Amino acid sequence: MFEITFLGTASAVPTIARNLPSIAVRHEGDFFLLDCGEGTQRQMLMHGVSCMKVKAIFISHPHLDHLTGVSGLVETMALGGRTEPLAIYCPKEASRFFVKKNFVQIVEIGGHLTWDFGKFEARAFPNLHTKPSFGFVFEEKEKIRFFEQKAKAAGIRGPMFSEIMRKGEIAVGGKKIKLKDVTYRQAGKKIVYSGDTAPCQAVAKAAKDADLLIHEATFCSDRQEEAKKSRHSTAIQAAEVAKKAGAKKLALTHISARYPDPSAILAEAKQVFENCIVAEDGMKIKI
Amino acid sequence: MFEITFLGTASAVPTIARNLPSIAVRHEGDFFLLDCGEGTQRQMLMHGVSCMKVKAIFISHPHLDHLTGVSGLVETMALGGRTEPLAIYCPKEASRFFVKKNFVQIVEIGGHLTWDFGKFEARAFPNLHTKPSFGFVFEEKEKIRFFEQKAKAAGIRGPMFSEIMRKGEIAVGGKKIKLKDVTYRQAGKKIVYSGDTAPCQAVAKAAKDADLLIHEATFCSDRQEEAKKSRHSTAIQAAEVAKKAGAKKLALTHISARYPDPSAILAEAKQVFENCIVAEDGMKIKI
Repeated sequence: MFEITFLGTASAVPTIARNLPSIAVRHEGDFFLLDCGEGTQRQMLMHGVSCMKVKAIFISHPHLDHLTGVSGLVETMALGGRTEPLAIYCPKEASRFFVKKNFVQIVEIGGHLTWDFGKFEARAFPNLHTKPSFGFVFEEKEKIRFFEQKAKAAGIRGPMFSEIMRKGEIAVGGKKIKLKDVTYRQAGKKIVYSGDTAPCQAVAKAAKDADLLIHEATFCSDRQEEAKKSRHSTAIQAAEVAKKAGAKKLALTHISARYPDPSAILAEAKQVFENCIVAEDGMKIKI
Repeated sequence: MFEITFLGTASAVPTIARNLPSIAVRHEGDFFLLDCGEGTQRQMLMHGVSCMKVKAIFISHPHLDHLTGVSGLVETMALGGRTEPLAIYCPKEASRFFVKKNFVQIVEIGGHLTWDFGKFEARAFPNLHTKPSFGFVFEEKEKIRFFEQKAKAAGIRGPMFSEIMRKGEIAVGGKKIKLKDVTYRQAGKKIVYSGDTAPCQAVAKAAKDADLLIHEATFCSDRQEEAKKSRHSTAIQAAEVAKKAGAKKLALTHISARYPDPSAILAEAKQVFENCIVAEDGMKIKI
């Protein structure tokens, strides 16, 4: 299960209601940040995201509004005595903005695009904004679950569960039991963050069948030209990507300060994709 | 008259109640910032400080918590189409943290320590923290005011007021009137910001007879050793400096996250200096 906390849902400029972009993703006890705009560390305090439990920060692109919160957060971790490694995955151009500390490991996105976090995998994919700019997929690994009744009927008990998992089969009372006959595969949850982007096939592909697509929706259709010029998306465009991807749920974020009331954003998107919300600072979603 | 708005009253780490350090000083229609910690631009929105009306930013020393708000604020000004110059007065070591824009003029503190803003003067003075580190004095220029009755009795009317101001004397009906006989000097208001500092003579001297001394009080006396080691002040030490200076009012800021309830800070300071307050984010003082 992933728990998403929206820490900042503004676009380039903060408003009284919306801080600069950042999203916390919790998986079991660990937190991961998607972007880290100015003021993120204080938003974390306000919305229950422990800075010491952040394992990694993912920066989508080297625009200031998505990364000026990193150095202050790292300073606070250092003052708190942190020694545990903190990975910062970012385009090369972003790293010059970060204060350097011993526990910080900068990982440039590009050479590698996939990282294994044990129970889930994180992937970066190029989107359509500046160069470089990325979106991110977090996907839990598939789990093998036992059919409780079938396993019991086959006589599997105690340590035999781990043995059949390890070997793929096991002999019980002279009879060979195959793993696939007593188990099923449970798909992991998948969440996708578009980053800042014009509507594009890359996001639709990355978000295929996602349980949650978090897509930027900087503008309404009244500003379609401006969206096109600045390589951002309108609410309808974001909804179209979610529909194309077959995503189960859509959360819109990166809302321009021009829309203090986001109801127009929501109404536009819902014309195309019904299971849609506009994120607010502090909103939490469990997937 | 100066109007002070406390935008951030925390020390190194923000809390839910206190943002990182920044103080806005308004003089007539212009704003000036003393330090600019992370999140300052959003605090400005919340507390009515227009970012387009900021004429200059003064950075006391090159520690991140006092300056990471500069770049985001400058970006927001740029997005707002600013072309009007913005001066940033800072120690040389601080300037590398700031995004560069055409309208930004970086002025290193050191070569010069005094700047003229027309109706008031700003001065920097070295305090006792890191090297380099400064406090600031804002002092209105002395005004020459007419004794209304005396001027009238001497026959001064209309354009004669500006003539006697310009020439120092004027002939009225064959009689010579000297400026000093019909005017008095009105002292300007003086406010002083200690910056981050151990208690020191330099602040006491700079704050002589100040209408308001804004002094850091990171700790209570229970942490006197820690204050000494990190070159910060306790509340009592700040109050002693205010007393020595003969300041009229003392506002304590830069409060450690260790004191969510500042009443102990206030009680300590009041033992030494009665006209004292602990600043809160959003608090305004007119001097």
